Amino acid sequence: MMKKKAAGLIIASFLLSSLIPASLYAGNEAAKPRSKNLIVLIGDGMGPAQVTAARLYSKAILGAESLHLDGYYVGQASTFSERGEADGTVESGMITDSSAAGTALATGRKTYNSAVSLSNEEVAMPYASVIEAAEAKGKATGLVSTVRITHATPAVFASHVRSRKNEAAIASQMLESGVDVLLGGGEDYFTGKDAGGKRPDQTIVPDFEAKGYSVVKNRDGLQALTPGHDKVLGLFSRSHFDYAIDRDSSSPSLTDLTGKAIELLSAKPEGFVLMIEGGRIDHAAHANDLPTMVKEVLDFDAAVKTAMDFAKKDGSTSVVVTADHETGGLSLGRDNRYELNIDLWNRQKQSSQALNAALEQARTPEEIRQLVQTNTSIADLSDEEARFILKGDGTNYEREGAYNAVISKRLLVGWSGHGHSGVDVGVWAYGPIAELVKGKIDNTDIAKAGAQTIGVDLDAATAGLQAKYWYPKFKITSDRSVVYPAKALAAKLGASADWDANSGTVRIVKGGTTILVNLKDNSATLNGRAAAYAVHVEKGTLYLSLDAFNELSGLNMTWDPLSERLVLKAG
Amino acid sequence: MMKKKAAGLIIASFLLSSLIPASLYAGNEAAKPRSKNLIVLIGDGMGPAQVTAARLYSKAILGAESLHLDGYYVGQASTFSERGEADGTVESGMITDSSAAGTALATGRKTYNSAVSLSNEEVAMPYASVIEAAEAKGKATGLVSTVRITHATPAVFASHVRSRKNEAAIASQMLESGVDVLLGGGEDYFTGKDAGGKRPDQTIVPDFEAKGYSVVKNRDGLQALTPGHDKVLGLFSRSHFDYAIDRDSSSPSLTDLTGKAIELLSAKPEGFVLMIEGGRIDHAAHANDLPTMVKEVLDFDAAVKTAMDFAKKDGSTSVVVTADHETGGLSLGRDNRYELNIDLWNRQKQSSQALNAALEQARTPEEIRQLVQTNTSIADLSDEEARFILKGDGTNYEREGAYNAVISKRLLVGWSGHGHSGVDVGVWAYGPIAELVKGKIDNTDIAKAGAQTIGVDLDAATAGLQAKYWYPKFKITSDRSVVYPAKALAAKLGASADWDANSGTVRIVKGGTTILVNLKDNSATLNGRAAAYAVHVEKGTLYLSLDAFNELSGLNMTWDPLSERLVLKAG
Repeated sequence: MMKKKAAGLIIASFLLSSLIPASLYAGNEAAKPRSKNLIVLIGDGMGPAQVTAARLYSKAILGAESLHLDGYYVGQASTFSERGEADGTVESGMITDSSAAGTALATGRKTYNSAVSLSNEEVAMPYASVIEAAEAKGKATGLVSTVRITHATPAVFASHVRSRKNEAAIASQMLESGVDVLLGGGEDYFTGKDAGGKRPDQTIVPDFEAKGYSVVKNRDGLQALTPGHDKVLGLFSRSHFDYAIDRDSSSPSLTDLTGKAIELLSAKPEGFVLMIEGGRIDHAAHANDLPTMVKEVLDFDAAVKTAMDFAKKDGSTSVVVTADHETGGLSLGRDNRYELNIDLWNRQKQSSQALNAALEQARTPEEIRQLVQTNTSIADLSDEEARFILKGDGTNYEREGAYNAVISKRLLVGWSGHGHSGVDVGVWAYGPIAELVKGKIDNTDIAKAGAQTIGVDLDAATAGLQAKYWYPKFKITSDRSVVYPAKALAAKLGASADWDANSGTVRIVKGGTTILVNLKDNSATLNGRAAAYAVHVEKGTLYLSLDAFNELSGLNMTWDPLSERLVLKAG
Repeated sequence: MMKKKAAGLIIASFLLSSLIPASLYAGNEAAKPRSKNLIVLIGDGMGPAQVTAARLYSKAILGAESLHLDGYYVGQASTFSERGEADGTVESGMITDSSAAGTALATGRKTYNSAVSLSNEEVAMPYASVIEAAEAKGKATGLVSTVRITHATPAVFASHVRSRKNEAAIASQMLESGVDVLLGGGEDYFTGKDAGGKRPDQTIVPDFEAKGYSVVKNRDGLQALTPGHDKVLGLFSRSHFDYAIDRDSSSPSLTDLTGKAIELLSAKPEGFVLMIEGGRIDHAAHANDLPTMVKEVLDFDAAVKTAMDFAKKDGSTSVVVTADHETGGLSLGRDNRYELNIDLWNRQKQSSQALNAALEQARTPEEIRQLVQTNTSIADLSDEEARFILKGDGTNYEREGAYNAVISKRLLVGWSGHGHSGVDVGVWAYGPIAELVKGKIDNTDIAKAGAQTIGVDLDAATAGLQAKYWYPKFKITSDRSVVYPAKALAAKLGASADWDANSGTVRIVKGGTTILVNLKDNSATLNGRAAAYAVHVEKGTLYLSLDAFNELSGLNMTWDPLSERLVLKAG
């Protein structure tokens, strides 16, 4: 009996293995694509407890036994980032931020917190995303989010910068990226300061239009788009979208964005790759605002349904859903009570963020009490609780943080702070990609599996990028010269760099070319002749201006000050 | 291209479906068993963050990239319990305890917190576990734990009581259960008070010996057992095992217990069902003692390896691993720091529980500081921290709780209290059962899948139990009469019970038999003749003594005072 079964299983697994190679790494070139289209959905900050919370709410309040997500659960992913520094100051620990996690999900590579799709080195190298690899293969591509489209998670799919804060550069790189459909918030980073935006240079919306992008700014504009609109830039808010709990009907929902992006992209014959982010789950969790967070998860879950419905009808689409990390250290239950006050989760009228302006203006415990009662129906706030809200929680969330601390105690949920946590996150999938992301995986496997499923080559696309751009940890001297780390950049250029303590010089050699830097007087020579390089020493590291490296290497590298990168070859 | 693939998938899934029916519920009788043996491993309190913590520790300190568990991850399970009361006082909310979750995992039924494998009713009915259903089919069975073998998780597999606290009854029911191998702690509940134990009656170890059990009490005794020992009762501690971090070599590890149980049970030709609990993950998490908890998870993970190694070699064993719930609301990361101090996790010498005797004796902050430094190498405890430990954390964990609160802040982990939380837990599996427990399931599906995999019938076994035992919410009157809820028990017996406000009487009728109870003088009649029933009213509920119900029904029910149940038919 057992023998017969075992034989059956062997036949079955032989057939499966001929369709689905077990390894993600073996012979990408040889493998044929198994899906034409790929949809990646990322719930930012959507850890295990966030999902359970949304399901419990859905069941208790909405009468739905399960989330749309639930039918597709296949595994879990580890999320840790790579240790390192960013901007010279922020130390990157084991708990990931959205840009390091996004880099893993988009490119299959670990990096430091704050990095947008590049390596963890003094001279960082860009990593190509599955969107960029798909572009290279002629596929249509799209990015959708409820936060600024230049925020970390969408950014990692179509740009490369040392710091996620450089959103103006991210917007400019999106213009060059070839991504066909961009729908989200963040008009500010597409708009010059002169026009009320946040760009140091000029408004770049006309540049998108010049490249054939239709630009839309509200729900009606979105709905009017048809597959005839080849390229679309949708900017529906200056910064992030309002939370779902606060949103009015002029703003599209994540489902609206998802449905339209799929409609536009699926009209292209070459297939498409689309990333959809539920971006504000994270924000609500950072603020510790559970009722708002639950509604963001449900907004995201509805977008998952839209994607899955398409994939089932289409028959040649793989869908993978995950989170980048958990946010807030959410615990369902607290203080030794074996209960959750889910009815109360449903009473909150607006987000703590929306309430905060009023909280900030309150002067007395009684005013706080009134605000809380109006927003939550909690009528018995103690004097101590009201005074704590007036005082603030001691973090930069101030009164909003204190409000959520008080309310969370009533809701019977706990938080470990306003930051991220390191717990593994869920993975959900549909279509051929499911076999590749099931079980316990690492977040880097999501990108690898996506690329393999649609038959695109991350390594080749990465090599193409690295032949064009390098991202050194540069410095700007007091006289506004831009200088670059000598030893690290020399090494990248295949040169040696040696310190001679006796003479107080650094000797940099490549082939027949020698640069000698005298640190006593910050002078330099090239092959023995005086050279007018900017020489700068900071914290024991020698920096030189770009002419030194160009003369050393014979290259003609130029500096892109917006993206803060060396351009080896024009794009 | 796509069509060809689709055809291949159809063939593969046809073959698989002939081996593995999709539904857990369809035609149990018709389905043939797919495994001879079943091993269920339960990590008590092992939520998602507990698993991630153990893996991060394993990687950083032990150099092991992954847990043994990781290779078998297939899904996640919801854990919520059924609302209800226990003992008339404890309200049962949405966050499960170990007995309600264990009941779900063992029997496939939801119940209230504190219930041991019976229903959530005034007159509760027993639910059979997969162990009991396997017993009924002649399979060998075993229970293994690092806590008292009469504690909730092992209890739900082989006993039925309204309250998990009734451990003396659980031990007695284990004696009757036919379970072949019982290995754990808890000698106290097998030992009479006269002999220093906690049983109200007498020591029952001789009763086990009379039934053919070999009794062992230490590691050497365990190791000396051979498959010739048909039945074994191993009681290795008075109460729970010491934590792994505190344990000496005279005590077996969970892996030792697991290996021996498998050796003994696998020698039986009929196949076996074995439940193994890592019972103290939960305790360390309740105390908020992370370093101790991590070592408990690793102790459990090693037992998982032992079980998986056997299953792979054996070829006819299914293994499923899960947790009953999360404990402590653990968050990996806190206070907005994107880091974990894993090096420090490894410095703790003994558990907070073991340290607690010394903590309790300390009189000054300086003494506290010394104890902390010796146990953790943390030398810079502030005066405020030391004084907080002296004061206690305001819960019944007192100084131990405060110690862990201080240390957890240094370890950069957070907790939401000393209780359980409601997040979904992981599911890991090997063998044919894996298909039945993958994806998002409910904890009740674990029992159903187990029963289906080995071809045993939970419903039939439950019907057998319910024909024998009922568990009413009884009361004991001031004159020591045991009385039973009239309306609920009458309903179970198929009788009507009606209240007549005018006459102040309750009329209970079954067939031609009528009991009339006059609540003005607490008198009763049976078919018009005076009857000497004990009549008791409490909180608006009428209770009657057993003779009333026996005369009403014509049954000969007897009262089992230890197990607090009505015996309809002798066992």
